Amino acid sequence: MPILVMKFGGTSVATLDRIRRAAKRVGREVANGYDVIVIVSAMAGETNKLVGLVEETSQFFDAREYDAVVSSGENVTAGLMALTMQEMDVPARSWQGWQVPLRTTDAHAAARIEEIPPENIMTKFAEGMRVAVVAGFQGIGPDGRITTLGRGGSDTTAVAFAAAFGAERCDIYTDVDGVYTTDPRISDKARKLDRIAFEEMLELASLGARVLQTRSVELAMRYKVRLRVLSSFGEFDDNAGTLVCAEEDIVESNVVAGVAYSRDEAKMTLISVADRPGIAAAIFGPLAEAGVNVDMIVQNISEEGRTDMTFSCPTDQVARAEKAMEHAKATGDINFHDLVADTDVAKISIVGIGMRSHAGVAAKMFATLRDENINIKVITTSEIKVSVLVDRKYLELAIQSLHDAFELEKTA
Amino acid sequence: MPILVMKFGGTSVATLDRIRRAAKRVGREVANGYDVIVIVSAMAGETNKLVGLVEETSQFFDAREYDAVVSSGENVTAGLMALTMQEMDVPARSWQGWQVPLRTTDAHAAARIEEIPPENIMTKFAEGMRVAVVAGFQGIGPDGRITTLGRGGSDTTAVAFAAAFGAERCDIYTDVDGVYTTDPRISDKARKLDRIAFEEMLELASLGARVLQTRSVELAMRYKVRLRVLSSFGEFDDNAGTLVCAEEDIVESNVVAGVAYSRDEAKMTLISVADRPGIAAAIFGPLAEAGVNVDMIVQNISEEGRTDMTFSCPTDQVARAEKAMEHAKATGDINFHDLVADTDVAKISIVGIGMRSHAGVAAKMFATLRDENINIKVITTSEIKVSVLVDRKYLELAIQSLHDAFELEKTA
Repeated sequence: MPILVMKFGGTSVATLDRIRRAAKRVGREVANGYDVIVIVSAMAGETNKLVGLVEETSQFFDAREYDAVVSSGENVTAGLMALTMQEMDVPARSWQGWQVPLRTTDAHAAARIEEIPPENIMTKFAEGMRVAVVAGFQGIGPDGRITTLGRGGSDTTAVAFAAAFGAERCDIYTDVDGVYTTDPRISDKARKLDRIAFEEMLELASLGARVLQTRSVELAMRYKVRLRVLSSFGEFDDNAGTLVCAEEDIVESNVVAGVAYSRDEAKMTLISVADRPGIAAAIFGPLAEAGVNVDMIVQNISEEGRTDMTFSCPTDQVARAEKAMEHAKATGDINFHDLVADTDVAKISIVGIGMRSHAGVAAKMFATLRDENINIKVITTSEIKVSVLVDRKYLELAIQSLHDAFELEKTA
Repeated sequence: MPILVMKFGGTSVATLDRIRRAAKRVGREVANGYDVIVIVSAMAGETNKLVGLVEETSQFFDAREYDAVVSSGENVTAGLMALTMQEMDVPARSWQGWQVPLRTTDAHAAARIEEIPPENIMTKFAEGMRVAVVAGFQGIGPDGRITTLGRGGSDTTAVAFAAAFGAERCDIYTDVDGVYTTDPRISDKARKLDRIAFEEMLELASLGARVLQTRSVELAMRYKVRLRVLSSFGEFDDNAGTLVCAEEDIVESNVVAGVAYSRDEAKMTLISVADRPGIAAAIFGPLAEAGVNVDMIVQNISEEGRTDMTFSCPTDQVARAEKAMEHAKATGDINFHDLVADTDVAKISIVGIGMRSHAGVAAKMFATLRDENINIKVITTSEIKVSVLVDRKYLELAIQSLHDAFELEKTA
């Protein structure tokens, strides 16, 4: 029988009633003729509770013990979901990560999936089991101890299972009903996309869209797993949600697929840096070591051997960045006059694979913002994306005007 | 290094603060030169919460899924306890049942321990680990799935580990500070025993004393594990609690070690049963099938081919017993005039290995009760125990007068 992977996040299994609703969706796919692998998260709130217990016990905790504790939330949901399926007369059983086994690296609390041998679960499918409920977010390391995959690990688990089992599709059930052209809370013209290309989704995810974790999209793209994002609270509808798929599966698309944003960006400028070969490495090396996630980087035109270097990072890393730069200055590794942090900025990005074949997309973006008198502070571009930093007060205006200018409310 | 097993029940690990207090006791034994295996229960209330979720999900649940869900409570405590030991700079790690592995039968939710290979944990002790924190109450079945041991499983886990590792002692930390001559809430003359023989503890446990589960005492007796019961809330004291040990380790003891009682007993009498060979089997077979735990049995003198048959069982099983007997009568398997249930009785027992060598202990018990005008309704005896059923209103009076008569407030 064809295999389907269905993943339910924490809010979709927050109560027994919601677990029953999720189970009905699974039962429907079983009736459609699929053998189903269900990946479950912990009931909403449980993981935070367990993390809280660990952090209260130990400030610099042993990540192996953290994993042993935190993984228990998913185990509870998996058992309850299996029982719920059985109550509906669907043959089902639960699997903890080590039972599958889902083998990972030994990077506890942030492990990467290495291998999912399908034999154990396939044997049970062959024996008549229709639903394998797998505790997400966890695996077993080379040392035989429990590992967890870190943030977004449940989505990644689901995609990895879909790849390992050659699933027809991987459905990610969440609390939103798909991927939108932009945040519907900011623009009431935001439109749900029926399909979006992996590359676009990847950019949107890393640019702040909260729908899917970057890692899971990367994995889906690499193994060509058809990924569907949909709401576990909506009506049953086989065409619900947004399908994230290969570019060639999308017949027509807009030049720009969507407008993404990130509110908590800060712009940092090192004023009058001595300009010499290797200066970028001397600046961004210490920042990386200090754990600062530098996003955009702009180097201004050099004058008389000195230059200004601007970069952006999350606002909550500004203090860390300042400390790292002051330290590098004190040790003589770099030399600058001043470090200016502007924490009142936001990043706006337009994303679309159509940009590759259409000229003038960036120019149209800049013109649109100019027409609204929005000053652009930093620009970066990639093959399918243009990002700008603007004053945060213009965030909504910028998004709405770009959404209008690229006519995102209309289907291609 | 010599090995010590220390077991902490749910109330002893109910909060992070209590886990820290328990960890200090463990740290003290490490400083004393022991390698310690710590067996932990789930934090008080957690197991009931998980059982509640399972029962709400499914009335006739799959015990394998029940085990997968319910075992997670102990896993959380084990990880937190290991972290707490590490915070105290004691090398420690947690072990889930399947990691040890603690192998059990496949009787899910009521599995029995089959084997605990000590190699994995011993290897870590040899490498310098000082504390192995093991999640109690759980193991792995022949099918590779998680099992739980049923009621009292954590005590039994502790004793089984002590046997498998040849531990010097198994300390059971609980919320009482030892075994008493009788319930201190009933007699203020109740005295804590320093030592008690396995056989006596076994009788006391099965007669209603709540300190240790029968199964764990049986196992300790079979493998000669020195078992100590003590409070996790008292001061540090190497002689605290009560040592449950072999008879030969007790130099002097009273003839009677203690007075036990059970409040929720019912006396059932089948009036005028046709007396024929096989009648006892015809009565107690159906009762056993109906899940009635028959305790005492008395057959009165037969008159003209008919007899009265009296037995006792827990009060909450009376309805079940009545149904089984009416059914057996309806099918013609047995014949009786009436079934009379007396649910206002209590069972009082005196227990002591000294009875074996002392005559007249039972006679003294009966005389004591007669002097208080307490009517005895049923009597049963074993080598080291005499039990009687009396009207429940005499419970306290009977216990206090027997405690006085046998001078239990005095040390031997």
